[in-house]
Amino acid sequence: MTSKLPVSPLAPKKTPRLPKLAGVRLATAATGSRYQGRDDLMLMHFAPTTTMAGVFTRSLMPSAAVDLSRLHMTNSRGRAAALVVNAGNANAFTGAAGAKAAMDMAQGAAAALVCKPAQVYVASTGVIGEDLPTEPLLDGINTIARRFAAKPRAGFTGHNDHKAWLAAARAMMTTDTFPKLAWQTARLGGKTVMLNGIAKGSGMIAPDMATMLAFVVTDAAIPARVLQSLLAQANETSFNAITVDGDTSTSDTCLLFATGVHALGGAPLRSANDKRLAGFKKALHALMQDLAVQTVSDGEGASKLMVIDIAGAEDDAAARRIGLCVGNSPLVKTAVAGEDANWGRIVMAVGRSGELAERDRLAIDIGGVPVARRGRAVKGYDEKPVARHMRGHRIEIKISVGAQGGKGKGRARIWASDLTHGYISINADYRS
Amino acid sequence: MTSKLPVSPLAPKKTPRLPKLAGVRLATAATGSRYQGRDDLMLMHFAPTTTMAGVFTRSLMPSAAVDLSRLHMTNSRGRAAALVVNAGNANAFTGAAGAKAAMDMAQGAAAALVCKPAQVYVASTGVIGEDLPTEPLLDGINTIARRFAAKPRAGFTGHNDHKAWLAAARAMMTTDTFPKLAWQTARLGGKTVMLNGIAKGSGMIAPDMATMLAFVVTDAAIPARVLQSLLAQANETSFNAITVDGDTSTSDTCLLFATGVHALGGAPLRSANDKRLAGFKKALHALMQDLAVQTVSDGEGASKLMVIDIAGAEDDAAARRIGLCVGNSPLVKTAVAGEDANWGRIVMAVGRSGELAERDRLAIDIGGVPVARRGRAVKGYDEKPVARHMRGHRIEIKISVGAQGGKGKGRARIWASDLTHGYISINADYRS
Repeated sequence: MTSKLPVSPLAPKKTPRLPKLAGVRLATAATGSRYQGRDDLMLMHFAPTTTMAGVFTRSLMPSAAVDLSRLHMTNSRGRAAALVVNAGNANAFTGAAGAKAAMDMAQGAAAALVCKPAQVYVASTGVIGEDLPTEPLLDGINTIARRFAAKPRAGFTGHNDHKAWLAAARAMMTTDTFPKLAWQTARLGGKTVMLNGIAKGSGMIAPDMATMLAFVVTDAAIPARVLQSLLAQANETSFNAITVDGDTSTSDTCLLFATGVHALGGAPLRSANDKRLAGFKKALHALMQDLAVQTVSDGEGASKLMVIDIAGAEDDAAARRIGLCVGNSPLVKTAVAGEDANWGRIVMAVGRSGELAERDRLAIDIGGVPVARRGRAVKGYDEKPVARHMRGHRIEIKISVGAQGGKGKGRARIWASDLTHGYISINADYRS
Repeated sequence: MTSKLPVSPLAPKKTPRLPKLAGVRLATAATGSRYQGRDDLMLMHFAPTTTMAGVFTRSLMPSAAVDLSRLHMTNSRGRAAALVVNAGNANAFTGAAGAKAAMDMAQGAAAALVCKPAQVYVASTGVIGEDLPTEPLLDGINTIARRFAAKPRAGFTGHNDHKAWLAAARAMMTTDTFPKLAWQTARLGGKTVMLNGIAKGSGMIAPDMATMLAFVVTDAAIPARVLQSLLAQANETSFNAITVDGDTSTSDTCLLFATGVHALGGAPLRSANDKRLAGFKKALHALMQDLAVQTVSDGEGASKLMVIDIAGAEDDAAARRIGLCVGNSPLVKTAVAGEDANWGRIVMAVGRSGELAERDRLAIDIGGVPVARRGRAVKGYDEKPVARHMRGHRIEIKISVGAQGGKGKGRARIWASDLTHGYISINADYRS
């Protein structure tokens, strides 16, 4: 069954309306394979000029869909014709039958859209360990393909208005309480290019219903190799900088497609460091961070969003690990849920990270108020503004860890949800 | 205030009665410094022949007591005259004042018992970030020392009956719901030696009230260097094999004292590998494992004890890390709390560990019933005995990870508590 949970108090006030984006068409269908009365299948069809890049779960137990998409990315050298996503069944830990099911989805889409199977990407989210019945999915794929074909002249300019993007974001939802969409524009080679993105996820892995999925499409023309660098960079400070419960899904997938409609004049792009990409990079980063923060804001049972800024670490990577240690600490998370500005637990989490930090230089601000300096409480600090801040939805924690005699320059920002009775209820009380 | 929580359902049915142990006397006092109407100070006084060994938190933010005990262990080359422990204030993140307070406790005990300050060890547990007032503690130390001196002839054979050990275990409690005691005997050099141990802890770090503390005393004669190896070895498969919430206290301390009353004839002990130590090793290991399992059984809000056996890993250390990843996973812990035999979450946690494991060789048994084989569900397994097992207090999970083509020989056993509404209530609802 699908989520009947109330919408997260951290959800954006308004759902963004995504603009049309050239070179892609997308639609959804209700296959009835697990959920009733809602769409649970999404198909994107890309223009022949489309390149792609992908980052996947680091789990050593990846789902069949992750295995196949990784393989296709390599075999097609980053070309993309289509993307198929189903919700309700993750097709994970399903052995050889699962591998065949993922391949059937890709081949079904390739047959329906007349493209190469190796250019079709697949993602599945939902229960783990159950065989994925592909017949309803193949029926759904064919239904959508017929709808695309019914308006052949519209080509890749049809089926991509804001309703289509919203339907796509909704069709991927499992225990999500709101659809996640974001868009940006950027200047590239004297033209304005678009970036549209959708995501799902509510917990690094949700109760049986797994997974963080994110798909970003741009109409820019960027070679696959360059696109991969851009995605990997942006991912570090967006999806890799959020945490709900520290658990890693077997199916996490983030794909970036560039439809190539806006061909770039001048010399070809050879590197992510090409100066012409500065604006695009910034837009991609902003878009992915937006989706990532929406995802953590839909963390299971989340009542507060922690924004954790680390400074003074050995390097940025160390700062990131310290921030994740704080954001993952059950004691910090429960303190935040309880609106308790418990800086002792923050110090504990920093100490646990194993990264360079100097106890007697440690400084902590909560909601902009210095609560600890030089490894001890600030005597007589005004607790009222801190208490007021803790009652809000966005909890700002700044930690300067004083590594290397206070000379450390490493910085990072991490977003994390709190740990509430809601998390326990979703994950322990409701039986699968 | 002290804990008013109901006794953990996982507590031992009977509190062990510790036998007398030669070469140590111990007593407790109520200082009234934080708790009212209970003892909160414990003093052990050791025979002049006593050696010691210690393992401490790996946190980079250690408490002042940990700093001082580490220093004294080095400076005295593992000699011990006394141990002072207070509950209610952890003396952590208290800067230079905290370092002075810890030193005052050691010097106070040294003056009262007429011994070298560098042979006095100190441990503190309780709130973090508050200055520790030492005057009431020094008064308590002097009161206890006068009681020792009042029966000078009894020497180290008095003040160490089962009541004294129970009082000592109780005086260290913070949010613990039961006192933790264990004892063993062993044959060493043709004699029977005793090992008595006490511990406290209910969460790697409890709500403000920090810390796992464990103190083991034996009447054997073992050089400090050998004792340190024995303690480090036993610690890996006892206190380092348990997890409540994955958080690491700033004050974790485990000390082993050997009073040397039963001098060993023959060649001196030079190594922990000396064959004469086989029985002692086994007894020390059993005692520390007993205390460790009692500690995790008092995990905050714990309703179930998970016993996680990992086999088929690359080596024992890898097996231990996989087991801790499973035992720390909020999704596994909440599934166990919800009595849900959710093997998909177990697979997820194994995959997340980053250790060698082969998805398509993975095998999982719950309560002795095979639920997954070769990376997928065992078709049509009998769910009834599994469901019955999940309703019990002790949940047995066996995982064979199939590393190195199924040839991996690494094994480990990890004990973990589940994650319940009780944990959230203790840590979020009750404000400090």
